[in-house]
Amino acid sequence: MNNDKLFREGQDLLQKVRERKPIVHHITNYVTVNDCANIVLALGGSPIMADEICEVEQIVDISDALVLNIGTLNSRTFESMCAAAPHAKEKGIPIVIDAVGAGATFFRTDSVHQLISIASPSVIKGNLSEILSVAGSTSHTAGVDVSQKDDPDNISKIADIAHALARKVGCIVAVTGKTDIICDSTHVVTVENGTSRLSQITGTGCMSTSMVATLCGVSTSYLTATATAIAVMAIAGETAESAKGLGTFHSHLIDAVSVFESHMLRKRGRLYVREY
Amino acid sequence: MNNDKLFREGQDLLQKVRERKPIVHHITNYVTVNDCANIVLALGGSPIMADEICEVEQIVDISDALVLNIGTLNSRTFESMCAAAPHAKEKGIPIVIDAVGAGATFFRTDSVHQLISIASPSVIKGNLSEILSVAGSTSHTAGVDVSQKDDPDNISKIADIAHALARKVGCIVAVTGKTDIICDSTHVVTVENGTSRLSQITGTGCMSTSMVATLCGVSTSYLTATATAIAVMAIAGETAESAKGLGTFHSHLIDAVSVFESHMLRKRGRLYVREY
Amino acid sequence: MNNDKLFREGQDLLQKVRERKPIVHHITNYVTVNDCANIVLALGGSPIMADEICEVEQIVDISDALVLNIGTLNSRTFESMCAAAPHAKEKGIPIVIDAVGAGATFFRTDSVHQLISIASPSVIKGNLSEILSVAGSTSHTAGVDVSQKDDPDNISKIADIAHALARKVGCIVAVTGKTDIICDSTHVVTVENGTSRLSQITGTGCMSTSMVATLCGVSTSYLTATATAIAVMAIAGETAESAKGLGTFHSHLIDAVSVFESHMLRKRGRLYVREY
Repeated sequence: MNNDKLFREGQDLLQKVRERKPIVHHITNYVTVNDCANIVLALGGSPIMADEICEVEQIVDISDALVLNIGTLNSRTFESMCAAAPHAKEKGIPIVIDAVGAGATFFRTDSVHQLISIASPSVIKGNLSEILSVAGSTSHTAGVDVSQKDDPDNISKIADIAHALARKVGCIVAVTGKTDIICDSTHVVTVENGTSRLSQITGTGCMSTSMVATLCGVSTSYLTATATAIAVMAIAGETAESAKGLGTFHSHLIDAVSVFESHMLRKRGRLYVREY
Repeated sequence: MNNDKLFREGQDLLQKVRERKPIVHHITNYVTVNDCANIVLALGGSPIMADEICEVEQIVDISDALVLNIGTLNSRTFESMCAAAPHAKEKGIPIVIDAVGAGATFFRTDSVHQLISIASPSVIKGNLSEILSVAGSTSHTAGVDVSQKDDPDNISKIADIAHALARKVGCIVAVTGKTDIICDSTHVVTVENGTSRLSQITGTGCMSTSMVATLCGVSTSYLTATATAIAVMAIAGETAESAKGLGTFHSHLIDAVSVFESHMLRKRGRLYVREY
Repeated sequence: MNNDKLFREGQDLLQKVRERKPIVHHITNYVTVNDCANIVLALGGSPIMADEICEVEQIVDISDALVLNIGTLNSRTFESMCAAAPHAKEKGIPIVIDAVGAGATFFRTDSVHQLISIASPSVIKGNLSEILSVAGSTSHTAGVDVSQKDDPDNISKIADIAHALARKVGCIVAVTGKTDIICDSTHVVTVENGTSRLSQITGTGCMSTSMVATLCGVSTSYLTATATAIAVMAIAGETAESAKGLGTFHSHLIDAVSVFESHMLRKRGRLYVREY
């Protein structure tokens, strides 16, 4: 994998989504669920939100990818995730876990660990403290300074942790931040696009996850799919940046994804891949 | 009923909603619930969302219409629907069922059939595959080509199915699509307005259902109420069409409903009624 | 407390929110939860939505304020509120109750009374009929004319009821309406800003409550925090007023809060404080 191949593959995935309209099953939180559905549609996919345990297997049967987002997890939806995940694994569709709030409570941390063990996810995504929690390291033991997470030296340490987790679980690990870091067992991709406004509205992380699953739904190039989805959100943020306030920014962000043309990935994307 | 009467009655209903502000009780999904509340307000009604079984009867007591939307149905909310429906029936307020995802899982298909049997709904609404599932036909047995659903010959077959279901249940049946088809036991109305963008954001079907219930809340002309609500959404979609992307389209769609003047129904509506 | 002090303190609170980014834990309804999260972010705070009973105490531990909003309360989320509230009280963080729909059903009325008794809230907020229900008075016994609630004579009667409730519970009581009335045991503040459009979209009441909690999270001047939050929403509504429809109004409202500068409180706020 090199930069050129990453752009070529990513561009190809974006086109495939519009042709194939992959169905993306979400068991997700009620805060940002509307945004998640709309961003999947804006990218060209087809979202289904369903969390009743007695139907999740049948929904998995018609889906191309499964999102497990623990943003407002409760014991009922956790059970539904635990039913959907092995079925998705058996069927061979990608599972994307968004570890929202992992580390903040025992319930979330334990749930994510159980889901990873049951689901063998294709992608685990979170911000730095969430991924540290999933990896079982703390910022202290890892030598990472959470408050200075965009320092180059720090980025290298974060990549080490993400890479170790990716090898251990056998999946893609994405750590979002000012610089986004995406690892598989042999590569690290950094995404330098974005704007601080993306962290000033709710749902941009969840929407990125939904786009990751949408792209994973049309290919097994999960590293490319994950990096591309995260880059599209970051570039869309730059496009929407000029909005006069955060409400309009929200609308313009979805606008930008809905009119995103695949060649813009190479033109505007600041993605850098290196071997590990 | 003829075209002129349909427009006159529809226009009248739109004015009555703004005067009487009907209260529309929703037991609905968490994906599009915010849009549903906003569209009822935009039309001039007053939405209430309440799904706790111990209070749904009291909410029905103060409401003018009840929406049962199974978009993210679970066993708890299904029980609440089963408690609310007979109470609404007893009170004599219209019940509108949106059969979201019927046919996709046994749980949804069975739940819709049970709700229809308990509720004696005034309106059943869905897309083609949902209504086929409710009607107990498949596209194969019905001779309908789901992939060519807007072919005139197909539309006639779809109308036959909708009409048969309308007679059997004794209610209005609405089948949404590029051409929307609305039947009672003796008429079929087609609505030719709309834009493909309406299917590229989530919630337009649910919002139409909420508007159907709002209009049913001020009249017993349920055929007119249903056709008018669906036409308003389709015309609003045409108004919002020029938005630069799907986020802005979403806002402009709600704008268009909020400033919709009743005379625009006749001016812009492409509704056609015929006896069956 | 006088007008000058109110503006000075309010302005100070608005600046503090941007510096300290208080974490605001919400157990709230699924209709407006996305708006609540976005408005807290727009004001400069940090929202967390979590309602699983086994984690709410740990979420309270990292939070600066707790919102209990009963908009779509059910027995499960009520239990979670009952677990979170005493923990928040013990920890000493402010609890803000939004009594959505109190008086409409026994379930809501009883739940609010229980929550007040368990939580010793810092602020109780509602519209006139909700606060009458909480206060245990009816519009009849109180001599209040609900249909004429903006009549000056009525406003004085409403203030009496709010003031009596504030003394009884030992908290701030906010009654929203065309004129908003905010009382502690010795003062009444009226807010004369706003636009009728604020009642034509869903969520403006819930968003005000979330902003009240955000401001309470950086100070113990709860009277000022509550009056300021309500005034910011009302002024933002005036700013957004010119939007061409309700969808755009919604976006512009969040825009206006996100670019609200603290000095605008004094410049545009029509707040009037008097001793009781």
